Amino acid sequence: MTELAKGSSEVVVVRNKRVIFKDYVNGYPKESDMVVTYDATIHLELPKSDGGLILLKNLYLSCDPYMRGRMSKPIEGAYVDSFIPGSVISGYGVAKVLESTHPDFKKGDLISGSTNWEEYSLTTNPESLIKIQHANVPLSYHTGILGMAGMTAYVGFYEICSPKKGDVVFVSAASGAVGQLVGQFAKLYGCYVVGSAGSKEKVDLLKNKFGFDEAFNYKEEQNIGATLKRYFPDGIDIYFDNVGGKMLDEVLPNMRLQGRIVVCGMISQYNLDQPEGIYNLIFLLMKRVRMQGFIVIDHYNLYPKFLEMILPLIQERKIMYVEDTIEGLENAPAALVGLFTGKNIGKQVVAIAHD
Amino acid sequence: MTELAKGSSEVVVVRNKRVIFKDYVNGYPKESDMVVTYDATIHLELPKSDGGLILLKNLYLSCDPYMRGRMSKPIEGAYVDSFIPGSVISGYGVAKVLESTHPDFKKGDLISGSTNWEEYSLTTNPESLIKIQHANVPLSYHTGILGMAGMTAYVGFYEICSPKKGDVVFVSAASGAVGQLVGQFAKLYGCYVVGSAGSKEKVDLLKNKFGFDEAFNYKEEQNIGATLKRYFPDGIDIYFDNVGGKMLDEVLPNMRLQGRIVVCGMISQYNLDQPEGIYNLIFLLMKRVRMQGFIVIDHYNLYPKFLEMILPLIQERKIMYVEDTIEGLENAPAALVGLFTGKNIGKQVVAIAHD
Ligand SMILES: NC(=O)c1ccc[n+]([C@@H]2O[C@H](COP(=O)([O-])OP(=O)(O)OC[C@H]3O[C@@H](n4cnc5c(N)ncnc54)[C@H](OP(=O)(O)O)[C@@H]3O)[C@@H](O)[C@H]2O)c1
Ligand SMILES: NC(=O)c1ccc[n+]([C@@H]2O[C@H](COP(=O)([O-])OP(=O)(O)OC[C@H]3O[C@@H](n4cnc5c(N)ncnc54)[C@H](OP(=O)(O)O)[C@@H]3O)[C@@H](O)[C@H]2O)c1
Repeated sequence: MTELAKGSSEVVVVRNKRVIFKDYVNGYPKESDMVVTYDATIHLELPKSDGGLILLKNLYLSCDPYMRGRMSKPIEGAYVDSFIPGSVISGYGVAKVLESTHPDFKKGDLISGSTNWEEYSLTTNPESLIKIQHANVPLSYHTGILGMAGMTAYVGFYEICSPKKGDVVFVSAASGAVGQLVGQFAKLYGCYVVGSAGSKEKVDLLKNKFGFDEAFNYKEEQNIGATLKRYFPDGIDIYFDNVGGKMLDEVLPNMRLQGRIVVCGMISQYNLDQPEGIYNLIFLLMKRVRMQGFIVIDHYNLYPKFLEMILPLIQERKIMYVEDTIEGLENAPAALVGLFTGKNIGKQVVAIAHD
Repeated sequence: MTELAKGSSEVVVVRNKRVIFKDYVNGYPKESDMVVTYDATIHLELPKSDGGLILLKNLYLSCDPYMRGRMSKPIEGAYVDSFIPGSVISGYGVAKVLESTHPDFKKGDLISGSTNWEEYSLTTNPESLIKIQHANVPLSYHTGILGMAGMTAYVGFYEICSPKKGDVVFVSAASGAVGQLVGQFAKLYGCYVVGSAGSKEKVDLLKNKFGFDEAFNYKEEQNIGATLKRYFPDGIDIYFDNVGGKMLDEVLPNMRLQGRIVVCGMISQYNLDQPEGIYNLIFLLMKRVRMQGFIVIDHYNLYPKFLEMILPLIQERKIMYVEDTIEGLENAPAALVGLFTGKNIGKQVVAIAHD
């Protein structure tokens, strides 16, 4: 904390580093689409007269692929708002309450929820904040396994996939924040699980740390159709799709009767001006496949049930969670941009401060 | 019946007109892919010694789009067998039992089920035949509304669409064998229903005979996206897809939250060497859409329930059914081929004989 001024009444004013969104993005996002500013300041004390204010020290930020959508010009029917050019980036994160005149929050509380990409935030609108109750796991987990990624894997697998013991499951972007959990949930459920990821290191992680039955590096496969035939000689019951595009198209002819494709994400398409064509949808008919999209925010009523399941699994080490943590807010733009080239190994977290 | 010979033992031998499949088809099927032969003969009497034989006089044939698939080279995972070059075409139809040494069938019985495209058939394999119990509707209805098309509309709408009263429903190929029923089921259910079809005459039928709320001739629309926006200003809850391709792609951005797309057929793709690309699948995610393929043969356990529903509706004239009947087996190739250019207005039937 850089103290800038300490007046007679002991009001501390500090510099507030921030990540500002410059302008709407076309194509792949670049670090230079954001700028780190050092000129903002903030009072680290709340006016006594004002009720309902909360002063937060931001600790961990979550980097999520959906944020790419927020970098585009607003479009009709989008499920999230676009960022405002010239304004601070926001997303999910973990923060600590420094001061509060809000009755529900007190100094020292840890919260997760909507977080600005800045060192300190003042909020009058704590509806999106959840008080963290479970302090016996790493705090950063609330950006990932206990946050949106965890809920996404949980809802996607248990609520949308209709899994059955023995099902053959394929997960793409399998080592990522969501994928690593989907694979582990499927294994715990008694499924046979194969994952794809974009590097040897990630493939090793899938097989050796997360217990996938098989895994492959899709970037090294010349003919994805043939690769899928090799890994799924009898076809796929469940495809948990994180990537869309070519991989989805090649999966379709390899689906089994009554298979299910969960449309969790299509990261391979987010940065393209024109989406790629999908040519094999006739297999939805031939194989009687259900293909279903979902957005996790519709399912937060299940959050307590999810916590009840996941916390013991974490504590008993039956579920592993790999995070990729970058230190320092100034590195947040690189971390976010890196998602779209597969730089992250596991859940991408930015640590602004550890407490 | 052309008697060819009447021997001393009164065995009648007649000419048996047949439609023979010539060879595997690429692209649009043509009449000349089939040939009508007049040189086969058949004994119209069964040997007394042989039990389990049934001699059928074929009355009505059903022309169905899925038969196009049977004209292609056999492919792995197809849900129906290909026709055998040089052999008679087969499909669904209605026939009368002329003679039977099978205990379950007797002379005069009317049956529906698997039927060869020939005047008379001898079968030893009556598993696929259903005895017609409901003779108080036109016999030909058993090729359509009481046959596969009816069951398809029933299963597709009631079992796969998850309809709700007030849902906005869009049906493509809406005046066809399946589509006309889907629209009427949806209206009876309390939905708002719009159909698309390929001629003014069909559009009139949709609005004036089948009670669709709106209908349009997609062949006259320059910009299907804009057309859909006009007919569905608030989006589509259920798309009953009979055509696939471009129309499906344009529907996707017009889906409502939690919408459902029933993949019943993709007739626009059956004759293409390469399927068209679908570019808008991201809307499955954005709108949380479920897209589901089904094949009616998986659902025949529901046939009794279907009959229980549909027969009173037909008798009370609450459901209309339009057939397009061509007379004469020699015209069957033209009727079948005509499905793929939209020649048929309603269910395409071939009448070989009326009793
Ligand atoms: N439906 C929902 O509510 C919801 C919620 C959260 C996330 N999601 C979606 O779930 C997916 C995974 O999210 P996450 O948070 O777990 O991210 P993540 O997997 O941790 O990170 C993104 C990963 O995607 C892969 N990737 C990037 N570009 C790719 C491309 N062009 N083709 C194929 N793979 C590519 C990279 O891994 P590789 O090295 O393996 O290529 C990268 O590491 C995303 O599509 C996201 O939008 C959906
Ligand atoms: N899933 C199942 O179990 C199942 C069972 C039966 C049928 N089906 C499918 O359901 C659909 C309708 O079958 P049906 O028996 O009711 O046939 P139909 O609609 O009576 O006849 C086919 C109609 O399709 C339309 N059509 C032809 N080519 C087209 C194209 N390129 N683009 C758009 N429309 C085209 C034409 O009508 P227009 O004048 O309107 O263009 C034509 O009249 C087919 O796709 C069929 O394969 C599926």
